[in-house]
Amino acid sequence: MSADFETGPGTVAGVDSSVFRDSEDRISPFWLERLRAYLAAGRADDVAAVMEPLHLADIGDVIEALNSDERLALVRLLGERFDYSALTEVDDSIRAEIMEALPNAEIARGVASLDSDDAVFILEDLEQHDRDEVLAKLPTFERLSLKRSLDFPEDSAGRRMQTDFIAIPPFWTVGQTIDYLRSEADLPEDFYQIYVVDASYQVLGTIALDKFLRSPRVTRIEALMNTNFVTVHATEDQEEAARDFERYDLVEVGVVDESGRLVGVLTIDDIVDVIQEEAEEDIRFLAGIGDEDISNSTISTVRSRAPWLAVNLVTAVAVSYVIGLFGATIDQMVALAVLMPIVASMGGNAGAQTMTVTVRALAMRELQGSRLRRLITREMIVGFANGIIFAILIGVVTWLRFDSVSLGIVIALAMIINMIVAGTAGILIPLALDKFKADPAIASAVFVTTITDIVGFFAFLGIAGLWFGLF
Amino acid sequence: MSADFETGPGTVAGVDSSVFRDSEDRISPFWLERLRAYLAAGRADDVAAVMEPLHLADIGDVIEALNSDERLALVRLLGERFDYSALTEVDDSIRAEIMEALPNAEIARGVASLDSDDAVFILEDLEQHDRDEVLAKLPTFERLSLKRSLDFPEDSAGRRMQTDFIAIPPFWTVGQTIDYLRSEADLPEDFYQIYVVDASYQVLGTIALDKFLRSPRVTRIEALMNTNFVTVHATEDQEEAARDFERYDLVEVGVVDESGRLVGVLTIDDIVDVIQEEAEEDIRFLAGIGDEDISNSTISTVRSRAPWLAVNLVTAVAVSYVIGLFGATIDQMVALAVLMPIVASMGGNAGAQTMTVTVRALAMRELQGSRLRRLITREMIVGFANGIIFAILIGVVTWLRFDSVSLGIVIALAMIINMIVAGTAGILIPLALDKFKADPAIASAVFVTTITDIVGFFAFLGIAGLWFGLF
Repeated sequence: MSADFETGPGTVAGVDSSVFRDSEDRISPFWLERLRAYLAAGRADDVAAVMEPLHLADIGDVIEALNSDERLALVRLLGERFDYSALTEVDDSIRAEIMEALPNAEIARGVASLDSDDAVFILEDLEQHDRDEVLAKLPTFERLSLKRSLDFPEDSAGRRMQTDFIAIPPFWTVGQTIDYLRSEADLPEDFYQIYVVDASYQVLGTIALDKFLRSPRVTRIEALMNTNFVTVHATEDQEEAARDFERYDLVEVGVVDESGRLVGVLTIDDIVDVIQEEAEEDIRFLAGIGDEDISNSTISTVRSRAPWLAVNLVTAVAVSYVIGLFGATIDQMVALAVLMPIVASMGGNAGAQTMTVTVRALAMRELQGSRLRRLITREMIVGFANGIIFAILIGVVTWLRFDSVSLGIVIALAMIINMIVAGTAGILIPLALDKFKADPAIASAVFVTTITDIVGFFAFLGIAGLWFGLF
Repeated sequence: MSADFETGPGTVAGVDSSVFRDSEDRISPFWLERLRAYLAAGRADDVAAVMEPLHLADIGDVIEALNSDERLALVRLLGERFDYSALTEVDDSIRAEIMEALPNAEIARGVASLDSDDAVFILEDLEQHDRDEVLAKLPTFERLSLKRSLDFPEDSAGRRMQTDFIAIPPFWTVGQTIDYLRSEADLPEDFYQIYVVDASYQVLGTIALDKFLRSPRVTRIEALMNTNFVTVHATEDQEEAARDFERYDLVEVGVVDESGRLVGVLTIDDIVDVIQEEAEEDIRFLAGIGDEDISNSTISTVRSRAPWLAVNLVTAVAVSYVIGLFGATIDQMVALAVLMPIVASMGGNAGAQTMTVTVRALAMRELQGSRLRRLITREMIVGFANGIIFAILIGVVTWLRFDSVSLGIVIALAMIINMIVAGTAGILIPLALDKFKADPAIASAVFVTTITDIVGFFAFLGIAGLWFGLF
């Protein structure tokens, strides 16, 4: 990285506080200390001077690094010099906290200067009455356009889209278009393609900007445009749109309403965030965490995690009832209690492996036709193979530890059974949940571990009971 | 999505086999059947005709949906009509299988027509001697340029970069540049910005294409260029580069060598794949799976998973020794064996929750200064709060089940201890691994569950032993 994001002079105790990021790519503590001092002293111009060279994302990081009072002081001291787009770069909970504290009139002023997609991103999290109040303070055109975006479902392409775009008729030439772009002051901030539309805004084609720059002025737009283009529907989920971006290596895509009219565009920078979010979501759900981020308060964190733990408590108690069935067996041979968690734990791990592969393959839509059958077969064989390997290992270890060949054989048999069950459950449970339109990432883990726990304990204690005649 | 990816006429048993994707966004079985029939019959022109309208990514999906023999038949029948870029869209193991089967001369012919980044992507997985043979068959200029990319470390920006880009001197005008672009035939396929360089190819500035189209022909490049630009070093990890793309909403970035010379560019479509891969990697590592995908063979899958299971076996046996310490205690009160997995399981789940949040926050570089301290405090409080909640629940359930207030109190105390330990371990272990430059995603899970298992069993059995005087 170039070192372009440094700012003015100034040193604290011999350390250069003008350097924004340290060698670890973290915000320099000295830089931050200086900002804090300016904020505490209310020195608005100095705050503005150190913030001015920062990129939006860096401003977002600074806001996250400050405490609640400092954040508000920053926004208030900067006043009109504060760019509200920076709020799209911070965690939801921090944004909510800042918006809560600001008067609606101030929010309206800040939002009015934003691109439509950023404005929607900020408005959608406001309470209904605050949102209405802010919207009422905006100019008519902005208000209507933002309202239309807000009417689309949450997480839809219509919510995420930018409503400024460049649309031209097919009978223009390259020269006419360039002249238009040069004379028109009110263009979107960044754009990567131009849309060719008919009188009713139906998309006829798209032209990437590089194609424009390569073509002579006299070329007719009709002749230049790409007619094999992709569009997304405004009501489509942003996740679907993201898949199109990934699949077709898009940088920008047109968004159309139910009658096929072009109403906005999605750009790759928004989609990168969506891709990131979707992967995060699967990671969180697989680990039993809800929609939380690291800025969440303690109370909301407890609230987000307790339900998953409650489900786990119910299944753990259910599993303990299965063990309870063998109380008399354990009573006669306490080594069984010592060994039983091994079988359950290995099954749980093997099940989690298969389940994770399956959940991600489903999320990426990679399970088509023959691949699905092959995956099921493979996972069952893998379960069997790993079952044999680890059955032999644990069998020998147990034999040596307890000086009992029988106990070694019993645990080995239970291990093979549980590993095969783990592989089978790890693939079939996510598939079944997907079939019933449930998100496999959310519910698979609890089902799979419950099954491998129950089968692990049942198989081991059951086989032991039969083998040693303990029933 | 628009329906632009359909192809010519033709029906199978009354179902339209010309439709490429069905309503579920999967490749239509009828379309695939028709392709299979053409492949089996060796009808090269028909194969070419049905494949022709497909986008690269769709061709990749088709290759993945076919079996090994069909894949080779497809590549062979299409011959020069097969676009090797499609191989960048398939799983590693499938690409390796196809490359293995093709003669090196044929690979050289296919690779010669590719963009440099795609060519490197395909060449880097070949065995050293195959790679040298293919390179030897390429024209000198291509060979040298590919060799240079291949000399950069794996997963570096230099490996991923495209070596074709547009660089112009600062004293040109917009008009001169447009004329150059119109006259120059050999331009990169897609580009989003133009680089302004001095005579030794040091980057002076960048210009996004839309800025070009808005500016009058007489504007000097110097006056138009953005000098607050980001570049990445060729040796930098692609993950670092991806973070710059995300942070600064980039679409394209220049790659410079150790002397600051511009040697290539990275574009967002490559980076989207990197972002996806990195998130996938964390998901896989957290679940104890190595670098595998769903096309891996059964044997390589067993090989990738067995080490993780082996580590788990060792820790599970260690845990069972901890239980073994309490053999006499369990012998006197078999209910302890029935209940003990509950405490361990709850701790394991709570630990996984905290650990996952921490691992992802580390991966996203979100833990700076005051946030880190706040997160540690929060997780310990959350552990304590959830500990109290679930201690009360399980305490009451146990009391009613075994009609023993004492047993309820014992399990409740053990639960509180294990939940606090789970929260603490869940955050400190990933942080410690990160401190020692290990990837927290790989090793955290096994440490955390081992600790929560040991503490869970030890606390429950220990407190029970003391309480009931069973030692």
